[in-house]
Amino acid sequence: MVEPQRTVLIRGTGLLGASIGLGLRAAGQKVWLSDPSPTAQRIAQDIGAGTIYEAGDQAEIVVVASPPEVTAQEVADALQNHPTATVLDIASVKGKILSQLNALAADAQHPLQQQDLHRYVGTHPMAGREKSGPVAARGELFTSMPWVICAHETSSEEAVATATALARSLGASVHRMTATKHDESVALISHLPQVAASLVASRLQDAETSALALSGNGLRDVTRIAASDPNLWVQILSGNARPVVEILYGLREDIERLIGTLEEPEAPGGQADIAQLIAEGNAGVTRIPGKHGAPPQSFAVVTVIIDDKPGQIAAVLNDVSTVGVNVEDLRMEHSAGHQVGMLEVSVLPGRRDELAEALTEMGWKVVLS
Amino acid sequence: MVEPQRTVLIRGTGLLGASIGLGLRAAGQKVWLSDPSPTAQRIAQDIGAGTIYEAGDQAEIVVVASPPEVTAQEVADALQNHPTATVLDIASVKGKILSQLNALAADAQHPLQQQDLHRYVGTHPMAGREKSGPVAARGELFTSMPWVICAHETSSEEAVATATALARSLGASVHRMTATKHDESVALISHLPQVAASLVASRLQDAETSALALSGNGLRDVTRIAASDPNLWVQILSGNARPVVEILYGLREDIERLIGTLEEPEAPGGQADIAQLIAEGNAGVTRIPGKHGAPPQSFAVVTVIIDDKPGQIAAVLNDVSTVGVNVEDLRMEHSAGHQVGMLEVSVLPGRRDELAEALTEMGWKVVLS
Repeated sequence: MVEPQRTVLIRGTGLLGASIGLGLRAAGQKVWLSDPSPTAQRIAQDIGAGTIYEAGDQAEIVVVASPPEVTAQEVADALQNHPTATVLDIASVKGKILSQLNALAADAQHPLQQQDLHRYVGTHPMAGREKSGPVAARGELFTSMPWVICAHETSSEEAVATATALARSLGASVHRMTATKHDESVALISHLPQVAASLVASRLQDAETSALALSGNGLRDVTRIAASDPNLWVQILSGNARPVVEILYGLREDIERLIGTLEEPEAPGGQADIAQLIAEGNAGVTRIPGKHGAPPQSFAVVTVIIDDKPGQIAAVLNDVSTVGVNVEDLRMEHSAGHQVGMLEVSVLPGRRDELAEALTEMGWKVVLS
Repeated sequence: MVEPQRTVLIRGTGLLGASIGLGLRAAGQKVWLSDPSPTAQRIAQDIGAGTIYEAGDQAEIVVVASPPEVTAQEVADALQNHPTATVLDIASVKGKILSQLNALAADAQHPLQQQDLHRYVGTHPMAGREKSGPVAARGELFTSMPWVICAHETSSEEAVATATALARSLGASVHRMTATKHDESVALISHLPQVAASLVASRLQDAETSALALSGNGLRDVTRIAASDPNLWVQILSGNARPVVEILYGLREDIERLIGTLEEPEAPGGQADIAQLIAEGNAGVTRIPGKHGAPPQSFAVVTVIIDDKPGQIAAVLNDVSTVGVNVEDLRMEHSAGHQVGMLEVSVLPGRRDELAEALTEMGWKVVLS
C-alpha cells in the first residue's frame, strides 16, 4: 500500500487519471486533481476522484496522466515544482518520453537536471475503455489488469517502490521491464491488433448491406477494438513508430506472399504457402496466456439453446451453479433473423459431460462441443 | 418444410454433412449417408445422422458436403446418378464450383449435360466450428445462422424452393444472392477477417513470454479465429482467390501508407493520416449489424465485479432477471494475476440505471459504463 499520509497529485483527469483518483480515494488516499480543462477537473472532483489542486501545494507523489504528446513536458514540470515528489507517468509509450526527458535534462537552457530524473518512473497501466473522459472513470478499472513499471537506469529504488505500491493499491498486477522492451511488447500485443482491426473495419465502410447481413462472430471479434479513439491512437502509434513499423514490415511481407499465391492459386507450392500461413496463425494463437495469466488452456464448451427473453441466461447459469461447475468463459452467439440464442458455457474439460447431462435432465436443450 | 417422404442423401459426413443429417432427422426426414471414409460414414450413422447409403438407391435430394476442391465433381456425379434429384452443395465458395460444372457440361467428352444443371443449386450455410469431423456435429448448428442460396441462371424454381425449404427446416435464415455476389461478400466478411487474424497470430509465434503476459481482450478478440483448420482454408482461399486478392490489394495499400507515415511520424500530414485510418475503422465497424440482424445498436454496459468461483455469474444474472431486464450481451473480462472477474452485462440504454441501482441494493459491486 501507498502510505496513507502521502498526498498524490494527479495531473490530467481524463478516463485514466480520474479512475486512478477514484481508486486511490477508495483505498483511503488523499488526492489532488489538476487538468488544463476546468470542466474535466470539476467533473473529476464531482465524481469523487479527489479535490482540485491549489498551485504551490507540495505533493509527495505526482501521477502524470496527460495525453502522450505532452507527457514529457508535464513530467519535467512536475519534477521541478514538486522537488521531493516521486513522479510517474502512465502513457502507453515509454521510450519516447524517456528520451524527451533525457534531452531536456541534457539541455543547459532547460532547468531540468539529470538528478531530477532519479525521482521519475515511467509506467503503463494496461487498462482502458472505448469511452473516454472523467465521466467514464471507475476506480476498479485497474483490477486484475497488468501495470508495467519501467524503471530507467537512474530511477531511485524508492521511486520504483512507490510506483509499484501505487499500482498494487489499485489492484493491478505489476510487470517490470525496460522502456524498450515495453514498447516492443505493446507494439506486438496491443498496437498491431489495433492496426489490424482498424484496417479490416475500414474495408467495411462501402460494403453492401447484403454482404454485411452475413456477418458472424468472426468478423465481430476481429473488428471490435476498431471502435477506438483516433486522437489517442495517433499519439500512441506515432509515439511508438519504430517498433510498430518493424512489425508492419513483417506483416507486409506476409501479405505480399499471400497476394502472390492468390494471384496464381494453381501454381506449384501455392497451396502449401496458404496452409503454412494458417498453420502459423494456429501456432501463434496458442501462445496467448489464458485467464488470470494461467497457461493457455482448452476449455470444453457446453452450448445451451435459449429463448431471447429476460431471465433465460440467468436460469441456465443458476442451474449450472447448482451442479457446482465453475464457468470459465461465457459467450452468446448472435446471428441474423432469429429470436433464439446460443449460450456457450466454457468449463474444465473433466466437468463437461456431467454438466451437459445434468442440464439436459433439467430440461435444457444442450449441445456438446 | 421439406416434404417428409422425400429421401435426402448426404455425400460427405464431416462436421457440416453430419450436422445436416442430425438436423434433418430431428425434423423427421429420411437421411442416407455416404463418405469416402468408411470411418466417418460409420460415426455419422452411429450418432444418428442417418443410415449408410446403398449404391443404386435413388435419392430425391442430394446434399454434397464434400471438401470444396472435390465439390464440383461430386455434384456432377450426383446429378448423373440421381437423375430426378435436386442436388445442392454447401461449399464456402460458389463461383468456382459453378464454372467447373459449366465446363463439365460444355465438355462433349463428359456425360454431364447442361440441362442436368437445372436441378443444381449452390448454397452456403454460414456456420461452422473450430472442431471438425462428424464427432463434432450437432443438429442445431444452423439455428439462427445465415444460409446463402445462390440460384444460377438455369436453376429450376423447384430446385431453388427445395434448397430453401431444406435450409429453413434446419432453422437457418435464408439469404438469396448470385454466386458472384456471394463470393465478394464472404471475401470481405469472412475471408478477410480470417486472413487478418492468422497474420496477427502468426507474429506471436516467436514473441517473448513477458510480452505475451500483457495480452488483453483486444488481442484475444482479434486472433480468436486464427485457430482454424489450415486444410479447409487452403481450399476456401484458393477457391475464392480473385475476390480475396482484390481486397488484399486495398489492405496492402493501406499498410504501405501507414508504414510510410510511421517511418517519418513527424512529417507534415503524418498524424492526420493515422487519425484517418483509425476514423475509417470507426466508420466501418458501426456498419456491422447487431444481434438477430437488427440495425447496429449501442447497448449500455453494467459491469459487476465477482469472485472467480462457481455460481457467481449465475447469481448475478438471476438477480438481473428478477429486475426483469433482458441481457443483450455478456462478456467476461479476463486478465492476468487476479482471482476476480468482471462480468459485463449489456442492456438497453434505458434500463441501465434501474438495473445498476437494483444490483447495488442487492449487494453487488457494480460499475457503470
